[in-house]
Amino acid sequence: MSRRSLGLLTLVALSCLAASADSPNLLVDPFVGTDDMGHTFPGATVPFGLVQLSPQTDLVPYSSGDGYNPEAYRYCSGYQYGDTTIVGFAHTHFSGTGHSDLGDVLMMPTVGVLQLDPGTAEEPESGYRSRFSHQREAAEPGAYRVTLDDSGIEVELTATERVGVHRYTFPASDAAHLIVDLTANIYDYPGKTVWTSVRMENDRLLTGYRQTSGWARSRVLYFAIAFGKPVESYGLRNEEAEIYRGFWRRFDQDHDFPERVGRRVKCHFDWETAEGEQIVVKVALSSVSTAGAVANLEAEAPGWDFDGLRDRAKSRWAEELNRIKLDADPVILANFYTALFHSSMAPVVYSDVDGRSRGLDGNVFSSLGFTNYTVFSLWDTYRAQHPLLTILQPQRSVDMVRSLLAHRQQSVHGVLPVWSHHANENWCMIGYHAVSVLADAYLKGLGGFDADQALEAMIASADFDRYDGIGDYRQLGWVPADRQTSAASKTLEYAYDDWTIARVAESMGRTEVAAEFGRRAASWRNLYDPETGFLRARNADGSFPADFDPMDTHGQGYIEGNAWNYSLFVPHDVAGFIDLLGGPDALVTWLDNLFEMEIDDASIAANEDITRAGIIGNYVHGNEPSHHVPYLYCFAGQPWKTQARVRRIMTEMYRPAPDGLGGNDDLGQMSAWYVFSALGFYPVAPGSNQYVLGSPAVRRAEIDLAGGRSFVVIADNQAPGNVYVDSVRLNGAPLDRCYITHQEVAAGGELHFVMSDHPNREWATAAEQRPYSMSR
Amino acid sequence: MSRRSLGLLTLVALSCLAASADSPNLLVDPFVGTDDMGHTFPGATVPFGLVQLSPQTDLVPYSSGDGYNPEAYRYCSGYQYGDTTIVGFAHTHFSGTGHSDLGDVLMMPTVGVLQLDPGTAEEPESGYRSRFSHQREAAEPGAYRVTLDDSGIEVELTATERVGVHRYTFPASDAAHLIVDLTANIYDYPGKTVWTSVRMENDRLLTGYRQTSGWARSRVLYFAIAFGKPVESYGLRNEEAEIYRGFWRRFDQDHDFPERVGRRVKCHFDWETAEGEQIVVKVALSSVSTAGAVANLEAEAPGWDFDGLRDRAKSRWAEELNRIKLDADPVILANFYTALFHSSMAPVVYSDVDGRSRGLDGNVFSSLGFTNYTVFSLWDTYRAQHPLLTILQPQRSVDMVRSLLAHRQQSVHGVLPVWSHHANENWCMIGYHAVSVLADAYLKGLGGFDADQALEAMIASADFDRYDGIGDYRQLGWVPADRQTSAASKTLEYAYDDWTIARVAESMGRTEVAAEFGRRAASWRNLYDPETGFLRARNADGSFPADFDPMDTHGQGYIEGNAWNYSLFVPHDVAGFIDLLGGPDALVTWLDNLFEMEIDDASIAANEDITRAGIIGNYVHGNEPSHHVPYLYCFAGQPWKTQARVRRIMTEMYRPAPDGLGGNDDLGQMSAWYVFSALGFYPVAPGSNQYVLGSPAVRRAEIDLAGGRSFVVIADNQAPGNVYVDSVRLNGAPLDRCYITHQEVAAGGELHFVMSDHPNREWATAAEQRPYSMSR
Repeated sequence: MSRRSLGLLTLVALSCLAASADSPNLLVDPFVGTDDMGHTFPGATVPFGLVQLSPQTDLVPYSSGDGYNPEAYRYCSGYQYGDTTIVGFAHTHFSGTGHSDLGDVLMMPTVGVLQLDPGTAEEPESGYRSRFSHQREAAEPGAYRVTLDDSGIEVELTATERVGVHRYTFPASDAAHLIVDLTANIYDYPGKTVWTSVRMENDRLLTGYRQTSGWARSRVLYFAIAFGKPVESYGLRNEEAEIYRGFWRRFDQDHDFPERVGRRVKCHFDWETAEGEQIVVKVALSSVSTAGAVANLEAEAPGWDFDGLRDRAKSRWAEELNRIKLDADPVILANFYTALFHSSMAPVVYSDVDGRSRGLDGNVFSSLGFTNYTVFSLWDTYRAQHPLLTILQPQRSVDMVRSLLAHRQQSVHGVLPVWSHHANENWCMIGYHAVSVLADAYLKGLGGFDADQALEAMIASADFDRYDGIGDYRQLGWVPADRQTSAASKTLEYAYDDWTIARVAESMGRTEVAAEFGRRAASWRNLYDPETGFLRARNADGSFPADFDPMDTHGQGYIEGNAWNYSLFVPHDVAGFIDLLGGPDALVTWLDNLFEMEIDDASIAANEDITRAGIIGNYVHGNEPSHHVPYLYCFAGQPWKTQARVRRIMTEMYRPAPDGLGGNDDLGQMSAWYVFSALGFYPVAPGSNQYVLGSPAVRRAEIDLAGGRSFVVIADNQAPGNVYVDSVRLNGAPLDRCYITHQEVAAGGELHFVMSDHPNREWATAAEQRPYSMSR
Repeated sequence: MSRRSLGLLTLVALSCLAASADSPNLLVDPFVGTDDMGHTFPGATVPFGLVQLSPQTDLVPYSSGDGYNPEAYRYCSGYQYGDTTIVGFAHTHFSGTGHSDLGDVLMMPTVGVLQLDPGTAEEPESGYRSRFSHQREAAEPGAYRVTLDDSGIEVELTATERVGVHRYTFPASDAAHLIVDLTANIYDYPGKTVWTSVRMENDRLLTGYRQTSGWARSRVLYFAIAFGKPVESYGLRNEEAEIYRGFWRRFDQDHDFPERVGRRVKCHFDWETAEGEQIVVKVALSSVSTAGAVANLEAEAPGWDFDGLRDRAKSRWAEELNRIKLDADPVILANFYTALFHSSMAPVVYSDVDGRSRGLDGNVFSSLGFTNYTVFSLWDTYRAQHPLLTILQPQRSVDMVRSLLAHRQQSVHGVLPVWSHHANENWCMIGYHAVSVLADAYLKGLGGFDADQALEAMIASADFDRYDGIGDYRQLGWVPADRQTSAASKTLEYAYDDWTIARVAESMGRTEVAAEFGRRAASWRNLYDPETGFLRARNADGSFPADFDPMDTHGQGYIEGNAWNYSLFVPHDVAGFIDLLGGPDALVTWLDNLFEMEIDDASIAANEDITRAGIIGNYVHGNEPSHHVPYLYCFAGQPWKTQARVRRIMTEMYRPAPDGLGGNDDLGQMSAWYVFSALGFYPVAPGSNQYVLGSPAVRRAEIDLAGGRSFVVIADNQAPGNVYVDSVRLNGAPLDRCYITHQEVAAGGELHFVMSDHPNREWATAAEQRPYSMSR
């Protein structure tokens, strides 16, 4: 029975229960987002695990050498729910990205004639791939299983942080195989696989590495594969035309020869199997060396007890998901825990069990003194996912901050990561939002890292003139449109990031730094075009480019959002923006227009990364720059409109179905938006230490905090139609402002909403009851 | 003035002097062997240094993708004396090989228009290369210099073990460049450069690595380049067509951008220079990491005192060369010290200054507890070069043995190296002669390694059935000609190696092992073909293949030697071979025929790796399998013939001129033959602890031994015509046998020859006065 159909039954059965210590896993549907735009995957992982072991339903190249293949985009995570064949199970994936990489160490069990090519979806018999059906596929946090219809092999997957574990149940066969295809890549193109190496250390252990150049420009991943049943015969093939074979030609390297290197290495391992015979295979990864992978294997997954390892993976998830205990309606429960699950996929642990880790400079660092993380998609995740982790995962958050600082120390440019990617910088998207993450952590008092070093790193990143027009930005006050793409978006995001630096500097008594970055934080004002009323990209001479189309994104100086959306990216100075517009009502009108305008298909096409499923009116929830937008009504004294909007977004953009996500999940940012919003509050401007109140979707939520405290959210009179907040009490006392602070959350306590089916137009509307803004 | 022409003057000046503590360096001519077949190079190195920094006179590919290019062979060491242009100065070379690799980190200073291609020898202006002339080139141990005629730049080179040091004297120029071409390889072919990476850490330090796949199938070399003058501008270019550029396209990566990776990376570093301005550049290598290279740089070559570093390199050589102090005629002096110099080029130090080193399995090993060496061309060097090192370099020899054992532990096959090549096995040539090196070290009592482990490693290598017919050899008693090439050569060499194992096992009281390998050592007998009288390759069914040509090598079951030469490869059982032939006279006749027959050009062509310069009659000195042959007369009771032959070989095959070597120097084996022979004794069968006496070419030699002892060779009545030994005394007592033992040498003492112009047909002719043989 598929998890999807199981889901609905479970939801009914659990509809009246608060999540118990075991149940939250059952509320998660890993297939959510696997259809169409979500770019999630259904495979097995543990929270923040390096190994994300998941089926791949096709190997669609990013390019065959003659230009970008648009079909590749659907395969960012390797899996598309609509597909009917599986090519194999790979050990690394990104959850929800809109550009991709990884898909390392693709493995596929087969029986019968040995085939080393994947074959085509149209003719699965042409290769090692197999048909499958969602009827014989199931996934839950930490575990995945599927029956391969062509061979009858059942595949079960689970994982530890650094080890993927497979259990294959074979039919009787005198030719059972396991294919390990080291040529397979997500977003493949000619030359992406730089080099691979394999060594059959003995009949139960293969070691090796894969070196690729793609989104991560120079990445190496070491592995160790342990076989539960001694391999009876094998072949480590290299399919490239070897111009130079040297003295190796004296060996038959294709059969039972224990070492091979090359650019096109594929391996097969063979057994005779009895009917129903199970073979467990464990795959450990390491950034350091094959010896590191073997050590990870031995430390995390000794023995061959697949069930035990799977139970441990599930317990790890139950522990994470139980950090928030919920009482809510079934769909909310399913959405919430699935979102919390998807919010716990990245960053991933990158250091080995012994603490060693590869650095951005290629060197191996030992004794860093913390767990090193990678996969920071910061343009996405600084908004809500990192703020969520500061509440739920303070210790991991500290290690993540230290990982960012280590990245900076290893960077030849001396800057914090834009997108930290397996000891690489892939420079994806814009801004220097690592500074927001650092600032937020510092201002929330997380501690555990050197504040002076952090401020120095933030300043270095903000002053990295070579990057994306920062030099011009510092000189002119804006990124000039005639020299840079996305000049408006860049200017706006730099201004926000600069404000977080100013906040930290102020807090540390670094007055001059605070003043400088306070000035820079106001740079958004330079973009105001009184003629059109939008914040717009501006040329170096101060002029605004002609041919302005506020509905278009491309060529207008924006990225993943048009003028209607992006002009609202002043999260740190909403009050200033309101002043500029001429008052709160002007902002409300803007927001109402945004959410209610009718937009044609051409305008959707003119946006990036979205489909109609990801928008409401012209509001683009499928892309991150708008995530704070529905909360802006609170800054204009009309919180009831925020309440209605966020509940609608929660309902329309999040559904417990494979196509249930309105856009790329983006390493958990889309999901973290839901988690916060369902709890009733959202970090509009990380660095402010404020959460703006929205409309909780739950009846009750209990958030475990560090040190045995908890923060409880209660929503009396909760119902699908009761989207409005009638009143709020914090720790028993009436709360007349539409925000709470991080200190209030972190101290533990109770936030008690009373919901209503009609707006309360009096509550939290006064100027002093609105959230913080730098201009206030 | 060229070293070549300087050479003759120096020789005259020094003709009456014994070498002093400073002088031996002046007797060395690094250009010997750089013309034609020697495959040596004239560049700068210290003894056994990893860095062998030398000019390359062309970049001739091994293949352009459509088959072997025979022109490449001349460029095994990158330098051909007859060339008129230099393309640059690379940091790693093999001295004297007959197949090749390396040529890492090619650097070339230029002025004027920036050119990143080497251009052609015909039109040097078409690239960065320059004309040069031997008139403005000079080399001595540890130092090299040349004037680049096209630019007027003077280049001076020196080295430490792990650091190459350049000093460029520029003309006045507003466009002085240093080109670093990471695409350049010796024995290049499409795809050989797997990946390269560079990082400009600051304006005085570049780090990076080069990864190649050639003779070493998967090799990585890290480097750190320090500039004595801050770089004023630079470019790290990648010349490949980058299908995927990702988000890096936002940077101008060609100008002053500090990081680059790819398959075609070339760099330039630019300065303005004043007339005569000198810039020192240091290049450190490491097998471990760029951090390792930086540490090697700081430890070995701090500061910018080129003269001081060069003086130290020269002192290192003087120290090594002075281990043997000589009184001899000028040509002998030049030949001898040049040979001793060339005998001290390999193996090379492979571990970093901190003791860490990359292993055959790709992992980094720390704290091995010894200096790890690589570049073991064992088929060549087990014969005389390693035996020479056991006398002159006992501590290095122990570390070399431990390096061989470490290689075995890292080998997925669990075997000792055939050819240890920068953490790779290249499987070049035949046999498992590491066992000979281990056995020789053990039997000479070197100690310092685990004997049981060594014997186990020797047995594992000898029982490696998968390799070159060993399985058949063990079963049949010979390597079958219908299944293996070079079957006769392999059988003969296995038998010798097996004898060394038997010797060790016997010495350790491992009776069964000794008996088994004693049996195997007699396998050479299985090759005797009574019909032709040669030791011949034999089919699996015991038959001898038809179409036998004793003058041919190819297809006859031999390699680098025909039946006349290779049948004599029974160094451990010459007495047995004599018995088989029917008595000592038969061997003498064979040897006389061999040395005196007239051989036509077709037969020379039918041999491998030789030219007429490398042969005397049909005796092939240019290839190793014959190196012991002239000494075999002693086993037949006619030592005077050995004496005459070896003196002739010394005279004809070794001359102090660029074309002065009769064949590839083969990492010092050819040269070590000379060193031993000039001293009057030679290790015919390493493992026997015997040195067979020949005809010393020196008047007096004093060999420094460990512990302050010395072994002195005196040859009274020495003269070019006095090639015969009239009598010998050892430590004052008459010596009536034509061999001495290692124990006698190592104990220190005096070996006193009296030379004569006519043979003494009485001395050391009796059976009991002949050297050891297993059948005796």
